[in-house]
Amino acid sequence: MTVAQRLAALGIALPPPAAPLALYRAATRAGALVYVSGQLATRDGKVLHPGRLGAGVSMEQGREAARAAALNALAAAQALLGSLDGVRVVRLTGYVACEPGFTEQPQVLNGASELLRDALGEEAGVGARVAIGVVALPAGSPVELDLILDVGA
Amino acid sequence: MTVAQRLAALGIALPPPAAPLALYRAATRAGALVYVSGQLATRDGKVLHPGRLGAGVSMEQGREAARAAALNALAAAQALLGSLDGVRVVRLTGYVACEPGFTEQPQVLNGASELLRDALGEEAGVGARVAIGVVALPAGSPVELDLILDVGA
Amino acid sequence: MTVAQRLAALGIALPPPAAPLALYRAATRAGALVYVSGQLATRDGKVLHPGRLGAGVSMEQGREAARAAALNALAAAQALLGSLDGVRVVRLTGYVACEPGFTEQPQVLNGASELLRDALGEEAGVGARVAIGVVALPAGSPVELDLILDVGA
Repeated sequence: MTVAQRLAALGIALPPPAAPLALYRAATRAGALVYVSGQLATRDGKVLHPGRLGAGVSMEQGREAARAAALNALAAAQALLGSLDGVRVVRLTGYVACEPGFTEQPQVLNGASELLRDALGEEAGVGARVAIGVVALPAGSPVELDLILDVGA
Repeated sequence: MTVAQRLAALGIALPPPAAPLALYRAATRAGALVYVSGQLATRDGKVLHPGRLGAGVSMEQGREAARAAALNALAAAQALLGSLDGVRVVRLTGYVACEPGFTEQPQVLNGASELLRDALGEEAGVGARVAIGVVALPAGSPVELDLILDVGA
Repeated sequence: MTVAQRLAALGIALPPPAAPLALYRAATRAGALVYVSGQLATRDGKVLHPGRLGAGVSMEQGREAARAAALNALAAAQALLGSLDGVRVVRLTGYVACEPGFTEQPQVLNGASELLRDALGEEAGVGARVAIGVVALPAGSPVELDLILDVGA
């Protein structure tokens, strides 16, 4: 089953790739690795649930935001590669905008990790991960994530 | 001298590898590189010195926390690779939970860097490093770090 | 045109490479990739515009700080490699010390991205990017950035 077939079966449509906000590329390749730029929780060009976890943004909204950022990351990778077949997640780094007392970054980022697992399969979609809480993100996004992907030889 | 012999000579026992807190792998490999997931300052399954530098967690506690996170990172790498022989630190990224006025992240992270140097030797254990202060980390850990390792061809 | 000729034409002089603040190397190489350690916004050994965006440090000062950090990153890479010819930016990760309400990290980091584009050219100097807002950085620097470079086979 191709990734496109899997996404169709799940009823998941990748968004159009987001235009970079500034002077960078959405994704670059170096050898077998693809580096996807930091992706925000946007849908149709608007930030989903702007704000911070622990200060108005709920866990469920945070998970939804993480999922949206992961969809944007897949769209950026597909735009570079043409297809997501054979792509494996090496590492996901996720940043959650939050209050000092908020400590559930892993649960928020599962919204992204579950989407990647569903889209690419358990073997290819689950990689290493880093989960960090930060004070602020571009455009007020509650979540930002970047990906390192292995696209093979 | 193998890394196991060096650790034994130093009286350092690696902890059992920590189970991932959520949907990710503790470490992944891509070519000659190994990416170790974000490691918290846990010992026996409990966070060491939870809180933030500059707000109740002392420098000495922060350094001890960084050392514990580095031990967890080595345990995760060993679980993936079977052995730490031939492993070289490419980059350590360290996140220190802290107050806005706290600026001694490098000194805190030396607790991790000294452990890696002692465990792997000066040549292999000292790599590039990034030191960042953040508002919050999973489970209230005062330090989190991830590693990129080179395991050769 | 070599990078040295380009820099000379632009009137840009690379600073001497900054000595690591602690136990790490300024840059490491793994295969075709070079990892440059986190670089602060220093000039002549002093932090430029210490503090946080949204709390006393202006956008223009932030951009100038980002540019200074990028110059330090190029100096670190050149010290490792001998020359910047053939170097390509794979990814820039930029951390902006800021208040919770500050959301213009991308505009601040353009100060770094423009310098890299000018120094290395559009093709090689513009890579993937991650822009994050954080609560504090070493030595009070308003910006820190790290680079992953591709130096070819």
